[in-house]
This record gives sequence, structure tokens and C-alpha cells, in this order.
Amino acid sequence: MRKEKLLNIPAIRRMPTYLHKLLKMQAEGRSSVSSTELADYMKIELIVVRKDISLTGISGQRRVGYDVNELIRYIKNYLGWDEIISGVLVGAGSLGTALLGYTDFAHYGFRIDHVFDISPEKIGRDIYGRTVCDVNDMAACFAGNPPEIAVICVSNSAAQGVADKLVSLGVKYIWNFANVSLQVPPHVVVQREVIAGGLAMLSVRRKQDRTENDG
Amino acid sequence: MRKEKLLNIPAIRRMPTYLHKLLKMQAEGRSSVSSTELADYMKIELIVVRKDISLTGISGQRRVGYDVNELIRYIKNYLGWDEIISGVLVGAGSLGTALLGYTDFAHYGFRIDHVFDISPEKIGRDIYGRTVCDVNDMAACFAGNPPEIAVICVSNSAAQGVADKLVSLGVKYIWNFANVSLQVPPHVVVQREVIAGGLAMLSVRRKQDRTENDG
Repeated sequence: MRKEKLLNIPAIRRMPTYLHKLLKMQAEGRSSVSSTELADYMKIELIVVRKDISLTGISGQRRVGYDVNELIRYIKNYLGWDEIISGVLVGAGSLGTALLGYTDFAHYGFRIDHVFDISPEKIGRDIYGRTVCDVNDMAACFAGNPPEIAVICVSNSAAQGVADKLVSLGVKYIWNFANVSLQVPPHVVVQREVIAGGLAMLSVRRKQDRTENDG
Repeated sequence: MRKEKLLNIPAIRRMPTYLHKLLKMQAEGRSSVSSTELADYMKIELIVVRKDISLTGISGQRRVGYDVNELIRYIKNYLGWDEIISGVLVGAGSLGTALLGYTDFAHYGFRIDHVFDISPEKIGRDIYGRTVCDVNDMAACFAGNPPEIAVICVSNSAAQGVADKLVSLGVKYIWNFANVSLQVPPHVVVQREVIAGGLAMLSVRRKQDRTENDG
């Protein structure tokens, strides 16, 4: 609990966006980037960009800006994305399918090795090159080597059962897309993803605009 | 640009989670809730819960806790979710389908009236009770009444074109799930949703654990 308070959540959530842009620049042969250019891209203020980037531990910006390759290295290191992180996904519905099709995960070192579902209609299907396995075969599939991160995309009512099973098999990090507060032992970390969080952001901006126009 | 800096992003993103829990309590006939219970549910510290809730403008917590109905009203009002917000969704792929199946939007007053796609295979299909329309019929569909919020779930390469069209038809709030920085006029607000942001959060926690174990 204590650690979470120390995290700069918006900055961490922005890291993949910086990385996405920097990897694109790298592919285009760009060698340096200014914080101004990143601020324009991110649509946030310059000082916020500088604070975000300083989190990675990179030394202060030089006159020419940041070295693209170096900044990529620092961001990846900060996130632990400089090595492969093994993953599995449970729940091969539309959201699970969307996540399996998210090509950027590969650039982030996040490798989804197995996909599980409980529905006989889905078991055996191929989704973006991965065969959906029976959730009851999970233990055999892991064979004593649990993945580092498990992504839960099942229904709200099934999520706790799936989490219990994952935890019993040794999974320590859970990325939960079901809209429930999972109960897990203290050594397990759950990141609950609430899709409506973005809608709330947009709604507050809309509300502000309306209040100003009324005033 | 200035306003964004004033927003407490993590607090706003947490609002739908409070609301989800409170609506459940309301359905169960609960009349009051303590901040301690909310902190347990949210897995954040008590002081953070109190700060979050104070954002809504509700007056200080009484000894018995918050009145569930009143807190729901304040959160909804803060987000502008106390009235219906009209929406459309463009891109009926797996992510778009997942969003259309997100039943909580209805409780948040967000009503997706139309779904558009460019693919002949998808046009005419029914997704959770909505018929997918041809993206080229968008102007006719709006008939001069643009929706308030448009959700973009198309490919990265198609997103800017879709945004241009939406803006030209009068849409002012865009919820963008494509992994691109959309260029829009200053009066248009874009909320860019980066799915990998949650993975970054989980990865930083994992990295911290590993660093501690090494040390």
C-alpha cells in the first residue's frame, strides 16, 4: 500500500506513449529529440515532460536535446521492459482479442505465451497466432513455470475464481480488466484497469467547458 | 493546455470505480458508507479517498460516513454524468465491440447511439443491439445534430481521417483508442487512451520488487 502512494501514476501511464513515439523516431533514423517536440506530441506542458523523463534517471537535457536511443534505453530500463516479460491472457472475448492484437506489446517486451478460455466454442481457435486453451489445463500448461503477468479479461463474476487459480499457480502480477476489486494475498500485485476512467477525464473537461460557458 | 495541468488525473480516473461500487451498494439497499470501506475497496490509502471525494464538492464526512445516494449524486454531478451524454463509436472491431458491450456506460449516462465502420463485412451487422452503419453515411446519420462524444477505435492509420470528419461535423470531444496523437482544432478535446499505460504501472511495481530483492 505504501509504495503505491510514491508512484507518479500519470507519468508512468505516459511512458508507453513516449516510448511509442521514440521507437517511431528511431525507425525513421532520428538521433535526437527536444523536450519541446515531445511536449507538442504528448499535448502536455514542457515542465511535465521534463519531470516525466527525469523519473527514468537520465541525466539532464543537453542543448541538442535527448539522444533518442539513450532515452529509449532509460525508459525501457525504468519499466523493466529491457527484458522479456512472460504473460498469459484469460478470457478470449472481444476485449481479450483486442489485447492479443495489440502489436506494441512485442516492442515493450511483453510476450503473451498462452490464451485461456472456458467456452468450448473458443477453445482450439486461433487468435493472432495463438491457440486458445482450456482454462482447466492451466496448471499443465504452466508446468511449474508460471508467467510473470496474467491478464484477466473474463466476466466480472468469473474474475475472482480465475485470479485465485492464477495465484495458486504462482502468478504474482495481475492486470485485471474485469470491473471487480480482486482479493489477493499481499505478495500479489493487481493493476485494475477501468476503461471508464478515460471517459471520466473527457467528461470533466466537457463539464468545465459547460460551466465556463454558463458563467 | 493550462486546464489539464489543474486536473487531478488519478482521482478523476478513479471516479467511475467509486461510482460502480456505490451503485452496487445502492442496489443492495445500503444507505451509508465510510471512507475506510471505500479505501479497502479501492486499495488506496484513506487520505487519498477523502481527497478524491472532496473534489466532488460534497461537504465533510459525518461520523456515520457518507450517504450513499448523496455521494452518487455528487460524483455524477462532478463528472456531468447526471444527464445523458450522446455518443458514437467508429470502428467495430474487437475493441469497439468490447466497448459496446460495456454495460456500465448506461449507468454513467453515456449513450452510444451509432456505430460506424468502413468494412462491408461489418456494415449492417448487429452488435449489442446496434446496427453498424457505413462511415460514409455519418453526415446523414447526424443530420446536423452531432453527438457530444465520439469514440475512435479504428486503426492507427485511419484515426486522423476519422477525427477530421468527426470534427468537421461538429464533434467536440473525442475518446481516442488509436495509438496516434490526433491533430485537432483548439476547441476540440481529445482523450487519448493508451492501453499499455496499465501495463507500465504493473511493470514498475514488478521492477521495484526485483530491485528490492536484489538489494
